[in-house]
Amino acid sequence: MLNGEKKIERPLRWAMVGGGRHGQVGYKHRIGALRDNTAFKLVAGAFDIDPERGKDFGTNIGVEENRCYPDYKTMFVKEATREDGIEVISIATPNGTHYEICKAALEANLHVICEKPLFFTSEEVLEIKELAEQKGKIVGVTYGFSGNQMLLQMRAMIEKGDIGEIRVVDLQYTHGFNATDDADKFSEAQKWRVDPKIAGPSFVLGDLSTHTYYMSQLIMPHMKIKKLLCDRQSFISSRAPLEDNAHVIMHYENGAVGTMWTSSINAGCMDGHRIRIVGSKASLEWWDSNPGELRYEVQGEPIQTLIRAMPYLDDMCNADERLGALHVEGLSESWANIYLKFARAIDAKNRGDEEALSKMVYPDINAGLEGVRWIENCVRSADNGAVWVDFNEVYEKTLS
Amino acid sequence: MLNGEKKIERPLRWAMVGGGRHGQVGYKHRIGALRDNTAFKLVAGAFDIDPERGKDFGTNIGVEENRCYPDYKTMFVKEATREDGIEVISIATPNGTHYEICKAALEANLHVICEKPLFFTSEEVLEIKELAEQKGKIVGVTYGFSGNQMLLQMRAMIEKGDIGEIRVVDLQYTHGFNATDDADKFSEAQKWRVDPKIAGPSFVLGDLSTHTYYMSQLIMPHMKIKKLLCDRQSFISSRAPLEDNAHVIMHYENGAVGTMWTSSINAGCMDGHRIRIVGSKASLEWWDSNPGELRYEVQGEPIQTLIRAMPYLDDMCNADERLGALHVEGLSESWANIYLKFARAIDAKNRGDEEALSKMVYPDINAGLEGVRWIENCVRSADNGAVWVDFNEVYEKTLS
Amino acid sequence: MLNGEKKIERPLRWAMVGGGRHGQVGYKHRIGALRDNTAFKLVAGAFDIDPERGKDFGTNIGVEENRCYPDYKTMFVKEATREDGIEVISIATPNGTHYEICKAALEANLHVICEKPLFFTSEEVLEIKELAEQKGKIVGVTYGFSGNQMLLQMRAMIEKGDIGEIRVVDLQYTHGFNATDDADKFSEAQKWRVDPKIAGPSFVLGDLSTHTYYMSQLIMPHMKIKKLLCDRQSFISSRAPLEDNAHVIMHYENGAVGTMWTSSINAGCMDGHRIRIVGSKASLEWWDSNPGELRYEVQGEPIQTLIRAMPYLDDMCNADERLGALHVEGLSESWANIYLKFARAIDAKNRGDEEALSKMVYPDINAGLEGVRWIENCVRSADNGAVWVDFNEVYEKTLS
Amino acid sequence: MLNGEKKIERPLRWAMVGGGRHGQVGYKHRIGALRDNTAFKLVAGAFDIDPERGKDFGTNIGVEENRCYPDYKTMFVKEATREDGIEVISIATPNGTHYEICKAALEANLHVICEKPLFFTSEEVLEIKELAEQKGKIVGVTYGFSGNQMLLQMRAMIEKGDIGEIRVVDLQYTHGFNATDDADKFSEAQKWRVDPKIAGPSFVLGDLSTHTYYMSQLIMPHMKIKKLLCDRQSFISSRAPLEDNAHVIMHYENGAVGTMWTSSINAGCMDGHRIRIVGSKASLEWWDSNPGELRYEVQGEPIQTLIRAMPYLDDMCNADERLGALHVEGLSESWANIYLKFARAIDAKNRGDEEALSKMVYPDINAGLEGVRWIENCVRSADNGAVWVDFNEVYEKTLS
Repeated sequence: MLNGEKKIERPLRWAMVGGGRHGQVGYKHRIGALRDNTAFKLVAGAFDIDPERGKDFGTNIGVEENRCYPDYKTMFVKEATREDGIEVISIATPNGTHYEICKAALEANLHVICEKPLFFTSEEVLEIKELAEQKGKIVGVTYGFSGNQMLLQMRAMIEKGDIGEIRVVDLQYTHGFNATDDADKFSEAQKWRVDPKIAGPSFVLGDLSTHTYYMSQLIMPHMKIKKLLCDRQSFISSRAPLEDNAHVIMHYENGAVGTMWTSSINAGCMDGHRIRIVGSKASLEWWDSNPGELRYEVQGEPIQTLIRAMPYLDDMCNADERLGALHVEGLSESWANIYLKFARAIDAKNRGDEEALSKMVYPDINAGLEGVRWIENCVRSADNGAVWVDFNEVYEKTLS
Repeated sequence: MLNGEKKIERPLRWAMVGGGRHGQVGYKHRIGALRDNTAFKLVAGAFDIDPERGKDFGTNIGVEENRCYPDYKTMFVKEATREDGIEVISIATPNGTHYEICKAALEANLHVICEKPLFFTSEEVLEIKELAEQKGKIVGVTYGFSGNQMLLQMRAMIEKGDIGEIRVVDLQYTHGFNATDDADKFSEAQKWRVDPKIAGPSFVLGDLSTHTYYMSQLIMPHMKIKKLLCDRQSFISSRAPLEDNAHVIMHYENGAVGTMWTSSINAGCMDGHRIRIVGSKASLEWWDSNPGELRYEVQGEPIQTLIRAMPYLDDMCNADERLGALHVEGLSESWANIYLKFARAIDAKNRGDEEALSKMVYPDINAGLEGVRWIENCVRSADNGAVWVDFNEVYEKTLS
Repeated sequence: MLNGEKKIERPLRWAMVGGGRHGQVGYKHRIGALRDNTAFKLVAGAFDIDPERGKDFGTNIGVEENRCYPDYKTMFVKEATREDGIEVISIATPNGTHYEICKAALEANLHVICEKPLFFTSEEVLEIKELAEQKGKIVGVTYGFSGNQMLLQMRAMIEKGDIGEIRVVDLQYTHGFNATDDADKFSEAQKWRVDPKIAGPSFVLGDLSTHTYYMSQLIMPHMKIKKLLCDRQSFISSRAPLEDNAHVIMHYENGAVGTMWTSSINAGCMDGHRIRIVGSKASLEWWDSNPGELRYEVQGEPIQTLIRAMPYLDDMCNADERLGALHVEGLSESWANIYLKFARAIDAKNRGDEEALSKMVYPDINAGLEGVRWIENCVRSADNGAVWVDFNEVYEKTLS
Repeated sequence: MLNGEKKIERPLRWAMVGGGRHGQVGYKHRIGALRDNTAFKLVAGAFDIDPERGKDFGTNIGVEENRCYPDYKTMFVKEATREDGIEVISIATPNGTHYEICKAALEANLHVICEKPLFFTSEEVLEIKELAEQKGKIVGVTYGFSGNQMLLQMRAMIEKGDIGEIRVVDLQYTHGFNATDDADKFSEAQKWRVDPKIAGPSFVLGDLSTHTYYMSQLIMPHMKIKKLLCDRQSFISSRAPLEDNAHVIMHYENGAVGTMWTSSINAGCMDGHRIRIVGSKASLEWWDSNPGELRYEVQGEPIQTLIRAMPYLDDMCNADERLGALHVEGLSESWANIYLKFARAIDAKNRGDEEALSKMVYPDINAGLEGVRWIENCVRSADNGAVWVDFNEVYEKTLS
């Protein structure tokens, strides 16, 4: 059980690119990173495209004025001259800027934590992966919902055979906040998400379903997609060619099938983030609107509801516990868990402890790569008329 | 509100074919038909393939011994000689016998109520439809779950525009009772369901999803499928070529998309029959495990839960109410509602009141036809590699 | 599993007193009694205080016109002259008439099934109990919710020690349909319920909580109340001295404590009928809004939800199963179960099989007596300023 | 919406007394206080009764070694000599030490934040209240669950008349973690809670129900208790005279009634913290296991579920919002909200802005006093045989 005591020798000196006042995402990074003040210390930032607003914001959250920079390039240059300069940055900017900032940061010898979807193409990811390896740096991806420890409980139970062989994977990440025409007009944070130049080749597939896809991989790492079919729509026509709704059918290598429904036009839906894994003996189901509960449904037995923080859970799950039974945790604990894993990975990398690193389970650059491949394949299928595509075909071509 | 008072002049003289002791289905027909003793009177039956067991059973439920027949052919002949002979029969036998029994009944000038799926092919249905018209008889189909009045509430709300234009239809009818290999071995009622000669071209698509598909048509009669894609599997391999799991994606003519998941290997699932209709303004959701509740989710407003028997519901819904608020209804009321509709349709037909008949909303032979077409298209898609098929193509060929 | 086959040699000839068109209660009796047409046959009735309306109603539900009587006295006299005269009646009239009708029926050598609360005083019940014994007749009480088989599952589990020793009993039966002043004005069925001359010494204590109290006794027959304290209010002042809300604290002989909240002014509450039994190891919880589910909460283990019709349930529970898994049952099955138990009790009584009778668990006259004692004690406590009263004090005086 | 930007000029220099490694409570204080690093800065502590363990722990969470003190007295003396000495402390020690630490802190001119129940007697609270006023210091009480913003939504709706006049208050705070005999033996944090010398006159009444009582007062500040009756038990007999279960009935001055069930032997219960307020038109219900939802049940209308972070909520509620819609908040946000309110109150007090202070709604010393009075009255009633006691009688004697 975590209580804030340090897990690495000293907090890492951390900066943010983006994540300022006019958006919700930056706060999630900060509550994740700064949860206990023993993993990260926020010492600098290029928080906003508007430098003055960024400086005002930065000082308001406790960053020294002279370390509130007008842009990331300046920050990397200036901080490199300080003995107590930054060691790691988080990128919380629109998708289209991730690649260049990430590359610049690695070249400036910084570890990187980046929002999803990582980049636009898997070729870009492979390039950055190589660069990170050369530089000896970590690239983490903030699949923010994936830090919930009940997902590790699912992983442990599946590993132990508690549900038998996996047959059906039922994934959903939907909401209805973009059901109306004007949803794109009034929010800065939403506008760019439907602009292909900034958002990349997808809207909800990238914005929502990559979370869920990564979580499914976290839960069942042995399950590999063989082929998939994606059908996508733009119910608000101005969003075309980007989709606000998509359905995907997946075939896994072991013969299992899966589906993903992702949507931001599922009007009125407030609990549409759901993962169900059906095995030959039992199923496991988790909803992010009630993230401390897990349904374990063994065919022919009473339905079981497993609850966070209880001794009957797997050690892997309870290792990430913080508040204890009866004390509801939420998304902030999920982010805190991920950021702590980033810190430990960076620390291991810095210490050259590749063995420890190899055992760590966290959203690393491979998880980022998988997310980009997921989008690429879904888009390729959809844009060819919702046909079946080989999940590895393009990627293998890229690799060769 | 229904309280058992007669809705037709006198109860119809009714017989069953099948539905004996060794299966669950017959009891549902009887509690539906005999709910108030004012719509039907059970006077004869060929309840069982084993005549002695059928007679024992028939007399045990109150049928005179000499009207418990060894088979349906004998029954039709003998009853035709009585002044008080049967007027209508219900067919609760395995799928493969529906067509011949139905045909024989119509030829014996009887109204027919038949289990779903009606027949194996739409050609058969069209033939029987013509015969029924010639004979002036009703053919009803027991989509037993469709009598729940909250479905009519959904229909009324959609008609009034309460959810806006329909965009996504999310259908599911799954359970896990056939997750194990031996599920097919010990139950008579299950064995034939995976034998294509008796079950027809599908298992769960016909056994489960035709209910839900009809219910969706009942709720939104204006929504027509343009094309669909079906992916089906046999996780218990002995069931091949029949499926125990299938996913379907549908495109409707108005641009809406839909999905159906049907399965009997969804291990541990006890509440997997669900209908969600997503409109441009709001969504409606209904689960058959809690059939007296309806979720009405308007984007941007508190979620509403509508509850059976309340005055705020539509008259169309409350017309089928029986027990009143706080008094939970279940599947037996659904069957009672459907059978009462059958009785009223038969009565109207008998009286030649085609106008009244034309206004009645109940699962008639066209609903049976739609169910068969649904299966045909799903199977055609699946057997060609889960490809898109035009929903009307084969059917139009049949008609021409 | 029940499927409608006869459990007694032939259906009993049955009549109703009350239960006509203008009220909901009669229909519940009929769907209970006539569920399968193998336990009771409705052959006569004095359905309404308005004889013409009663006759119109009676013939509409299939009773012969000449057996639709203007009042119960006439019915008892006339039916006594027929060879095929009635054998058992159900009383579904306002509380204040139960005693006299019941007495007259027994004197006319009829078995009696009566609405709750049985009578106004335990003295009356004791008198009628003696009369019934003299006459060799059954008096059953329609605690209509108590026929749900999951209550028997609770009984079986408690008996087996699955929850340890009982410590806390948490009972609630509340709704909000009488929250407004005018609730008493427009409904005939409600008006008399707040008139002490007709309703007796209580409103919701008698109308609602006697159900729940009986159900608690059914679940845990060994638990006896030692003393209780009741606090009652009339939030709609015109109801005084009768209460529309009450809270009771009970002390059981084994040291357990209990509470009952009963109310008809719990505004908006649609699921307020609940039973929770807390033991030293685990708790059991049941809600009548979802009557096919049972929560079994073992301290330190995952929460279990037991679901109707599953093989893991106790035989005592599944013996009353009708529709099978996935097929929701409701209140009508509960009434059907109770009426079938009445039929079997009457049949055993008629056959003189006292041994069989002694093993039957159903709401008999002792259950009626307990309900009246419950009300008497609650009212005595409340009217003395919500003080503790000895549960047996008055009763023992009555007996001596 | 809160995003971490500063609400007071600079973070307050803060220390903890207690709250070390061997207990869960300290972490909650720290995640509350340090949420955004803009309200409090943890600079010192006397974390543990074992000084070495305390120092090890303190340095592990980032406190300088020389400011990890062996006891609170030393801390107050030493810190007073520093220019950057502490300004405010939090007391997270067993109940029996609250009074002396609080008094010493105020005498050392420190603001105080203290665990509940504040002290043993209302006399002690009145004395400390006077001392705090003399010293110009704030005393806050950590009713940690009370920071959830949905409670303020309830307050706003009740104030606006959305539920009509309050009639019934239904409070519950129960769990089952102490159902077994040995629960008291193995946990340090539990042992002292059943020792009257350290815990004071109650166990669960103080440990659990004071939270819920304060929350009810926060929701409906105009509702005053007139008299109450409390029945308490020690199901684990070694806990006597302290209770592990209690039921309270309250009469409010406006004629409303209330009940509280508090227990730590409610075996298996994982969601037993609940507040329901019944008005003449509608009810509001909140459960802390799903703290972002609120049920609004208007009699005769569909049930509404209000969800955190939505624009339809009251400004008072959304002012405390942090993560935004679809992003589940938990107990840590509740603590963060309370601690931010403490910081703003301390800041206002420091600035002498009594007007701002008077408008702040947070658990101040009066809330602490009310909690102690609640316990005193409950215990007085229970110990006299569960009789009715006047809520103000003893208190008014104390005041005079």
